[in-house]
Amino acid sequence: MFESAEIGHKLSKGEYKRIEPRLRADLLDAQYDLHKNGKFPVIVLISGVRGAGKGETVNLLNEWMDPRHIHAHAFDNPSDEERERPPMWRFWRALPPRGRIGVLFGSWYTAPIIDRVFKRIKGKDLAQSIEEINHFERMLANEGALILKFWFHLSKKRQKKRLKALESDPETSWRITRRDWDFFKLYDRFYRVSEDTLRETSTAHAPWIVVEGSDPEYRAVTVGKILLEAMRRRLQEPPERRKPKSEAPPIVRSVDRMHILDRMDLTQKLEKRRYDDALDKFQRRLALATRNPRFAGHNVVCVFEGMDAAGKGGAVRRITAALDARLYHTIPVAAPTDEERAQPYLWRFWRHVPRRGRFTIYDRSWYGRVLVERIEGFCSEADWMRAYGEINDFEEQLARSGAIIAKFWLQISKEEQFRRFKEREKTRFKRFKITPEDWRNREKWDAYQIAASDMIERTSTAYAPWTLVEANDKYHARVKILSTLVKALEAAL
Amino acid sequence: MFESAEIGHKLSKGEYKRIEPRLRADLLDAQYDLHKNGKFPVIVLISGVRGAGKGETVNLLNEWMDPRHIHAHAFDNPSDEERERPPMWRFWRALPPRGRIGVLFGSWYTAPIIDRVFKRIKGKDLAQSIEEINHFERMLANEGALILKFWFHLSKKRQKKRLKALESDPETSWRITRRDWDFFKLYDRFYRVSEDTLRETSTAHAPWIVVEGSDPEYRAVTVGKILLEAMRRRLQEPPERRKPKSEAPPIVRSVDRMHILDRMDLTQKLEKRRYDDALDKFQRRLALATRNPRFAGHNVVCVFEGMDAAGKGGAVRRITAALDARLYHTIPVAAPTDEERAQPYLWRFWRHVPRRGRFTIYDRSWYGRVLVERIEGFCSEADWMRAYGEINDFEEQLARSGAIIAKFWLQISKEEQFRRFKEREKTRFKRFKITPEDWRNREKWDAYQIAASDMIERTSTAYAPWTLVEANDKYHARVKILSTLVKALEAAL
Repeated sequence: MFESAEIGHKLSKGEYKRIEPRLRADLLDAQYDLHKNGKFPVIVLISGVRGAGKGETVNLLNEWMDPRHIHAHAFDNPSDEERERPPMWRFWRALPPRGRIGVLFGSWYTAPIIDRVFKRIKGKDLAQSIEEINHFERMLANEGALILKFWFHLSKKRQKKRLKALESDPETSWRITRRDWDFFKLYDRFYRVSEDTLRETSTAHAPWIVVEGSDPEYRAVTVGKILLEAMRRRLQEPPERRKPKSEAPPIVRSVDRMHILDRMDLTQKLEKRRYDDALDKFQRRLALATRNPRFAGHNVVCVFEGMDAAGKGGAVRRITAALDARLYHTIPVAAPTDEERAQPYLWRFWRHVPRRGRFTIYDRSWYGRVLVERIEGFCSEADWMRAYGEINDFEEQLARSGAIIAKFWLQISKEEQFRRFKEREKTRFKRFKITPEDWRNREKWDAYQIAASDMIERTSTAYAPWTLVEANDKYHARVKILSTLVKALEAAL
Repeated sequence: MFESAEIGHKLSKGEYKRIEPRLRADLLDAQYDLHKNGKFPVIVLISGVRGAGKGETVNLLNEWMDPRHIHAHAFDNPSDEERERPPMWRFWRALPPRGRIGVLFGSWYTAPIIDRVFKRIKGKDLAQSIEEINHFERMLANEGALILKFWFHLSKKRQKKRLKALESDPETSWRITRRDWDFFKLYDRFYRVSEDTLRETSTAHAPWIVVEGSDPEYRAVTVGKILLEAMRRRLQEPPERRKPKSEAPPIVRSVDRMHILDRMDLTQKLEKRRYDDALDKFQRRLALATRNPRFAGHNVVCVFEGMDAAGKGGAVRRITAALDARLYHTIPVAAPTDEERAQPYLWRFWRHVPRRGRFTIYDRSWYGRVLVERIEGFCSEADWMRAYGEINDFEEQLARSGAIIAKFWLQISKEEQFRRFKEREKTRFKRFKITPEDWRNREKWDAYQIAASDMIERTSTAYAPWTLVEANDKYHARVKILSTLVKALEAAL
């Protein structure tokens, strides 16, 4: 992939002077249109070899465009807040909102490539990273992002020359350290690893563009023109054309119309006395587990989903009652804020991923995508179909970073829901819990049951299993939830 | 202040059972009304002695109310992202938005009190902290926050008994550590320091409520009732009644109608050749300063204000051109997002305060409060009058945490502005810079000049001085800005 970036591309200063004013004006126009349009973010990755003009080019982009709507982010060593979460968390934090350009300097490619060059990871680890990156970028693209990945290249000879030149000039010698030369010794290895990585991650929706980095005018105009062209093309595209095609096979309903939720035995009950004992026991064990020194190395993500009035809130409170208020946050899923709406749908859940030693309890969650959004048509079929895979990716990242994930589906019968709705309308301090929307949702009972079955089937994984909770009897439900969570914690510690 | 919290307050279980359901329902109602109203946040601080039931009470509040709209935050050791910013940054991060209840467990009181108890700071340092806290809380109150500060108290005898009881019970012995007993030895000192601090920070808008912590039923009902009462009262208050009265004396215009901006010599010029040399020289020195190892201990906050077309953007770019793109963020002041609108006006600037070793360049800033908001009447006179002091407090905190602050007012003549507007309308790639609003603002030229003069007079401090920049000649302006910034950096390193 790098061959054509070693042939000595050049642009004369005269030509540059001729091209630059027009290019600059066009870029500014495109940027302005992007901002007005406000429908998609532009994500520009800047990677490549040392000394190939990455920083200079980014500075130039900033100078050409309106700095209000372009932001560069650099990723040095992660902070402790970042280290205690999945590696991708820091990149999610830096994603530009719709209508803006984000320039990411160093990115999700840096660690896998460098780790492989220095043999800190194996080839299969790199392959896994590459697969994850491809999933991530496809998700971003499906969420509307325009992604451009620039790789700044220099041939071995030129890089050596460049490093020497920087080193011998007293103005720039500070930029070259021992580490740069150590790195240069691995040039061939770096070349191979990068080339493999680029080849396997250059996709239609997130292409790599290799830019020869030796001539400042050439590389600047190249990056500027490609960015301009890509923005223009996207801005002119009718929005329907952009809708991703469904990649998953259509869901085939089982011919007997049975689904997994039908098989649940909702008559399961626990009598009050046994409930009190069990509640007490498991709350103690939960409290004990959080005091295990090893707990400080894990975070806990709990997800509660279920039909309205299935008892999610009550179950959550039986968990939090056993926890120090310092340790947990309950995140209710309400309408997204405008900052959240300007990002991929998973963003508003990523931002609440807990640090180590903490719980985040999601009272409804990212599964809204394949439940309410599917049923109400808030997103297209292609959107919710791809969500299963995206959600699995998200949870896998959580699990790999040490998170304990417990997901609960609380199932009640339609009759039990009716009874509870009526009760809520009568009880003063439960009044707030019942709205006309709940009654409307109830009319879609069957659709929810089908969507929930599909969800469970497609997102119950070894690292993030669903627990189906028979919730007609609250005592039974709460104890099942608590015991499941406690056992998951105890197993992990 | 603690005497009446040592008399053995108690509530019988029977009475509690009678009161609790009603209190709970009322709290839920109030919380729901607060959410619907959405006009103010409720900030609940929870402090006090060990073993007095702070955690238990917060858990109970969470159980009584809708967990969706109440959030507890605990403050342990600051993260490195927090340590690299002013100490208050972590609390700003945790402020509840309007319509929500935030329970802060440990707060801005913890460090000053503990540091004083352990004699890590002097009495006068504590006094200074207290003054800052009073300013901060007054600002929160003026921004609409309902603030309730609960102090959970136990007499010395009771605390000892409580610690012993916790220690001897195998269920709770883990909660008591060496540190608790070390702390207990300092009970008398802690008592005195706390009492002084509470006395001096108990204000009408942010009162302390001391709660005897020995009886669970008593303390729960006390906190619940006070919270309920305060929320109800505020919800019933007509919004006008809440407008703060202006605390500053009215600004008296000097009788000769001269102001500081009139005295600027706008004819100052720099010829092109000298500009090129100076630009080059100062950009080098700026780059050099950022490579000084000591720079890693400072952050830099630059503020650009000035009339439209005064050349702010151009000046910013002359700075950023000398900086590695990794080091800076330019923050344009656009319309606030809804998350920002739900917070005090300084919140959206606090969130961008840079870490050490980084620059944040604010292209327009918090000074909008005393410029555009004052002139357009977006806030009341009392609001912008108090802003001078609030801004000084903010900048003082920045400076004390190691920030280098450079604030530039770019002044042009009315004629020069007209010329630049016309030019912008003609130049294609500057077109985006000129809007009908710019022409409307121009009609308010004199009002802006007066507001700017007041601003400079009231917010130019030793730690955050304003630099007045004669900007009719761009060369002169840019060099003055760069040299001022460079000298400030060099002096600090």
